[in-house]
Amino acid sequence: MAVSEVYILGGYQTDFARNWTKESKHFSALMRESVLGGLEATGIAPEEVESAHVGNFAAELYCMQGHLGAFFTEVHPAFSGLPTGRHEAACASGSIALLAASAEIEAGRYGLQAVVGIEQMKTVDSGTGGTYLGTAAWYEDEAEGIEAPFPKLFGRLGDEYDKRYGLNDDHLAEISRLNYDNAKLNPNAQTRTWYMNKEHALCRTDDNPAIGGRVRISDCSQVTDGAVCMFLANAEYAEKYAKGMGKKLEDIPRLKGWGHNTARLRFDDKIAESRSAEYVLPHVRSTITSAMKRAGIADVNGIDGIETHDCFTTSEYMAIDHFGITAPGESWKAVEEGWLEIDGKHPINASGGLIGAGHPVGATGVRQLLDGYKQVTETAGDYQIEGAKNIQTLNIGGSGTTSCSFIIGR
Amino acid sequence: MAVSEVYILGGYQTDFARNWTKESKHFSALMRESVLGGLEATGIAPEEVESAHVGNFAAELYCMQGHLGAFFTEVHPAFSGLPTGRHEAACASGSIALLAASAEIEAGRYGLQAVVGIEQMKTVDSGTGGTYLGTAAWYEDEAEGIEAPFPKLFGRLGDEYDKRYGLNDDHLAEISRLNYDNAKLNPNAQTRTWYMNKEHALCRTDDNPAIGGRVRISDCSQVTDGAVCMFLANAEYAEKYAKGMGKKLEDIPRLKGWGHNTARLRFDDKIAESRSAEYVLPHVRSTITSAMKRAGIADVNGIDGIETHDCFTTSEYMAIDHFGITAPGESWKAVEEGWLEIDGKHPINASGGLIGAGHPVGATGVRQLLDGYKQVTETAGDYQIEGAKNIQTLNIGGSGTTSCSFIIGR
Repeated sequence: MAVSEVYILGGYQTDFARNWTKESKHFSALMRESVLGGLEATGIAPEEVESAHVGNFAAELYCMQGHLGAFFTEVHPAFSGLPTGRHEAACASGSIALLAASAEIEAGRYGLQAVVGIEQMKTVDSGTGGTYLGTAAWYEDEAEGIEAPFPKLFGRLGDEYDKRYGLNDDHLAEISRLNYDNAKLNPNAQTRTWYMNKEHALCRTDDNPAIGGRVRISDCSQVTDGAVCMFLANAEYAEKYAKGMGKKLEDIPRLKGWGHNTARLRFDDKIAESRSAEYVLPHVRSTITSAMKRAGIADVNGIDGIETHDCFTTSEYMAIDHFGITAPGESWKAVEEGWLEIDGKHPINASGGLIGAGHPVGATGVRQLLDGYKQVTETAGDYQIEGAKNIQTLNIGGSGTTSCSFIIGR
Repeated sequence: MAVSEVYILGGYQTDFARNWTKESKHFSALMRESVLGGLEATGIAPEEVESAHVGNFAAELYCMQGHLGAFFTEVHPAFSGLPTGRHEAACASGSIALLAASAEIEAGRYGLQAVVGIEQMKTVDSGTGGTYLGTAAWYEDEAEGIEAPFPKLFGRLGDEYDKRYGLNDDHLAEISRLNYDNAKLNPNAQTRTWYMNKEHALCRTDDNPAIGGRVRISDCSQVTDGAVCMFLANAEYAEKYAKGMGKKLEDIPRLKGWGHNTARLRFDDKIAESRSAEYVLPHVRSTITSAMKRAGIADVNGIDGIETHDCFTTSEYMAIDHFGITAPGESWKAVEEGWLEIDGKHPINASGGLIGAGHPVGATGVRQLLDGYKQVTETAGDYQIEGAKNIQTLNIGGSGTTSCSFIIGR
C-alpha cells in the first residue's frame, strides 16, 4: 500500500469572542458546537468519520478534566466506539493533533479523520490562568512564583533581538495594530469590536501597562475560549467527496508540507544554543524551511500568506525574519514597507492572528489551518488574500520550544 | 513510497517500586533515567533517534507541568531540535503515544522513534491522587465530591457481571493472588517484596477495606511512579540494527497488529449501550479482535500470552472473556482451570500486571509492550512464558472508555 496524500475538507470555528463559562457551558458543549458545526460546514455525515484527534493544552487545570478524546464520542450517537486520542505540546497542541491525524491517513489507517483543537480558559481569573500557562515553560525554574511568566519570557525575546540587532517598540506597536485591524474583518475574531490603534499600542501610561518587561497589554494575545473542528481525508475519500460536490480531486486543498521541531525547554538554554547561529530561534527556522522543502516550495516568495503564532508582538517580529521575509534581524523592514498587510507582498495573519482573532491555546494550530483553508478556497470573506494559492502556518508551544508548520494549497 | 512495517527494538523500564518524590527527584529525572536506560539497553546512539513521543495522563495535576514532549530534548544534547509531542487518553496514554509513533513510521516520516510512557504520582496524598484520577472519568458527573471514584466505577463493573452472569469474589481474589505471585518474579515490579495471598485477598476485615463497593484494597493496582522508554523503527533501520547485532531482520519483533476504540465516557452510558450486546464492554472486545485481525491471528489460541489492564481485579475478569478465553460471563472457568498461570494455556500478566507490577498511569501501555518484547525475545527472565511467539496487550483508559491493543511477535 502506498502512502496517501492528505486532503483538507474544511471545518468550523466557534466565535472566539464568546465566554463559555459566563454562558454556564461545560467543555463538552464547546466540543459539541465545533464538531456539529464542522459536519454542517462540510456536509459530511457523522457516520463517515472514522477517527478523531483532539488538541488541547491543559483542560486538567482549567476544567478539571482529562481523557479529552472521549468527549468526541459524546457529540453524536454515530461516534460511539470511534478511535480517539488527545495530543499536547502547550500552545502547539492543535498542530500536534494535526500531525497525528495526518500521519494516520498517510499510513492508510483511516480514510476520514476529525481534528478538534479546543481550550476553555475563562474558567479562572487571569492570575490563575497565567500560572497555568506557566506549565508550558519549565514551571519550577521559569514560572513558579512569577507573575505573568509568559509575557516576561517573550519580553526577553524582544530584548534578545534588541541586543543582537536593535529593536524599536514602534515596530511592535505596528504589528499589534495590524492584527487588531485584520481582526475587524473576521466575524469569528475575539477582538473584532475592540478599540486599538498604533497610538494606543504605543501608549506608555497605566492604560496599557507593561506586564512582561517591554511587553505591554497591547502586545499580548488575550485569554480566549474556543474550538475548531477540521476534517482530513485520504485521496480516495477526498475524490468521492469532491465528486459529490460536482468538483474534481484537484479542487480539494492538500496538506502540501509540514515541519516539526522541539528546542530545549528553558528560554535561557535556547538563547545560549543560538548564540552563534544566524537566527535567534534556529529550530523555528528549520520547522519553516522543512515544511517548504516537503511542499517543493523554494522560499517565502512561493507562499501567498502566512498564519503565524503571535502570542505576543515579539513572536511575530521573530516570525518575520525566520520565514525569510527579511534577512535575520531586519523584520522591521517588512513592517515599514507594509509587506504584511492583507494586500501587501507577504500578508501575515489576515485573520487577525492570536492577538486579534484570539488564542484558545489548544485550538490555535487548527484555527490557523482552517484559515489557510479559507484563503486557498477563496472563502475568507472580508479578509481574503487575493489569489492565495499556498498558505503557511507557524504554531509555537512554550517560549519557542515546540514549533509546527503546515503548508496548505491546491 | 510504501507503508513500512514497524519493528520494535526494545527499551527500558524504571524500577516501579521507587518513590521519586521521596528521592527529591523531578519529573525530568524520571524521563532521563528511562531514556538513557533505553539507549543503553538497545545499544542505540542518541544521534540516531529522529523523533520522540511521550505518553502521560496528568502531569499538569500531579507535577504542575505540561509541554511534556519537550523534556525529551533535555535528556541528551543530541536531542535538541527533535520533533516531540505528548499524547493522552487517561490510563491508555502510553498506547496512544505508541499509536502516534507507529503511524509516523508507517507513513515514512521517521526511521527511528523513541516512545516514553511516564507518570509521577506519589507527589500527592492518596485522596488528592484519587481526585486527580477522577478526571479520567466525566469529572463533574462521576467523580466530583466522590471518594475513590475509580474503585467505585470498577466495583460497578463487577456488579454488572454479577447481575448478568453471577460473580464470585473468590475468583477476583485468585486474580489478585496471581498478579502478586507473578510480580515476585519481576525485578521491576512495585509489589515484588509485598505480602499477599488468596486468604489475605479474601479477608473481609479492616486489614483489607472495601473502598469501592465490592472492590477492596487487594483488588486495586497501586499508586506508582515509573517510566518506560521503547524504540520503534522502520524496516530499513531495523535491518541495519539487526545486522549490527549479527542478526537478521526476521529476528527483530514487529508490531503485528493494533486495535483502538473509544466508548462513551460515562460508565452508565456504556452499560446502557451494551444492554443487549454479547459482551459487557463491546468496544473493548472490538479493540482486541481488530488487533488480531490485523495480525492475521484468528483467535486467542494464536496468542501465547496477554499483558492486560488490571487496574482492578474486575477489569482483568472482564478481559478474560473479552479476549475470548471463555464464553462471555464465564471468565471464572479460566481462573479455576489455572489457564492464566505463566505455564497455563492462556497466561495473563506474567509480569504481575498493574496490580502486581504497578500502574504509573501514562507508562502502562508502553510497559505492557516492553514486557511483550521481553517475552517474544525470550529475555523475560523468571517470568518468561516458554516459547512465546505472539503477545497481545490490552490497555484501557477510564471506565472501559478508550481501549488499545497491540500484538507483538516475530
